[in-house]
Amino acid sequence: MAHEQFFFSQHKEDKNIFIEAGEHQHLSRVMRKRPGDTIWISDGKGSSYKTKILEIDQENTKCEILERHPKFGEPENRVSLAVGIIKPAHWEIMLEKAVELGVHDIYPLMTQYTVVKSLKRERSEKIILSALKQCGRSYLPILHDPVPFNEFIKQKRDEITFICDNQDDYPQMEGGMAVKDYLVLIGPEGGFHPDEVKLALQHSAQPVLLTNRRLRTETACLAALNRLVV
Amino acid sequence: MAHEQFFFSQHKEDKNIFIEAGEHQHLSRVMRKRPGDTIWISDGKGSSYKTKILEIDQENTKCEILERHPKFGEPENRVSLAVGIIKPAHWEIMLEKAVELGVHDIYPLMTQYTVVKSLKRERSEKIILSALKQCGRSYLPILHDPVPFNEFIKQKRDEITFICDNQDDYPQMEGGMAVKDYLVLIGPEGGFHPDEVKLALQHSAQPVLLTNRRLRTETACLAALNRLVV
Repeated sequence: MAHEQFFFSQHKEDKNIFIEAGEHQHLSRVMRKRPGDTIWISDGKGSSYKTKILEIDQENTKCEILERHPKFGEPENRVSLAVGIIKPAHWEIMLEKAVELGVHDIYPLMTQYTVVKSLKRERSEKIILSALKQCGRSYLPILHDPVPFNEFIKQKRDEITFICDNQDDYPQMEGGMAVKDYLVLIGPEGGFHPDEVKLALQHSAQPVLLTNRRLRTETACLAALNRLVV
Repeated sequence: MAHEQFFFSQHKEDKNIFIEAGEHQHLSRVMRKRPGDTIWISDGKGSSYKTKILEIDQENTKCEILERHPKFGEPENRVSLAVGIIKPAHWEIMLEKAVELGVHDIYPLMTQYTVVKSLKRERSEKIILSALKQCGRSYLPILHDPVPFNEFIKQKRDEITFICDNQDDYPQMEGGMAVKDYLVLIGPEGGFHPDEVKLALQHSAQPVLLTNRRLRTETACLAALNRLVV
């Protein structure tokens, strides 16, 4: 699959998949694909399909499914991140790289030290979709709505596995972690407020240090994914 | 050290370190540090110092060394990257994150598929220095001059440990790698030319796949560092 081109479509009918709108324009005008060409399509729900183009008309591209590949390009476990919102330039790097590194869900957190309080949702979703196609994944990671820290902890209670913060007294995360699902809290620039850490620890979160260097928020996200995604 | 401010200086005399030029301006004007304040200084050669500011004059800041910390913020092993040159926006993300993740040396490679053939050295070095201070490292990673792929392989011969490429038939890199020094080849966008792969394999390089997803060049750099830096 190394050099295959991935497209995205959630419109599937029996043995055919239809590529529409912007994806269709891109396929037909920019990539200049033709009937008979083989393309890969991700449905964003966990499967990718090897298909043959049957017809390209004004409105859409009709493809015949040749092979279905469940979990194509997907990790074995689910690693989700709950991240203090950071400046758009850093946030966007985080999103792109997190998708490449196999993130499952992303929960933007509003914390005591977050300066940025909102996200450009449309732009963020574009980046996620584009990274999905670039790296050839089958599952489209979900970007949730921003949520205040305390509320998130209450919602997720016992699901939270780690809280990562630049604190000297935290134990360093070990290599070779167990293959299971993880939900990891990562602070914004400036880290978490001590009250937030306390609340997380009162629930299921274990404190961990990712390295003996101070990592920026987006780098911490990538380091955590790299350690936990299998 | 979590909230300490790091400065950079290679001017050390006996028990004192002098902060000069732009670093001095930043310290005195922007950060508004005063005599008596404690600051951390990295010498870029592998040690960091906890110091007390003695004097701030027009030209420089004189600091007294309180504690010397060899290998502060440094990994136990040396992991260096030889990377096909990519577009500046991606290259700069790679540099910043690679420093945070503990890279030792960086060798920019001109390969058959590199489109970009040169680097903005001054800008690249600024990014490396700024990342060093941000993450609190003691060793300033060296950015070497761009070198043609074949020449690099000849120069480094038996030192090259891995070649990472998006090839389906490469074995996946395992977790829990041995703590030793590594020199890893990472292709530019589009990967390595088959002849380049062949040449690398004829020397000491082992082929590895970092994930079952296609990673961008800069993401592959970070994933490799994350697996190998201890």
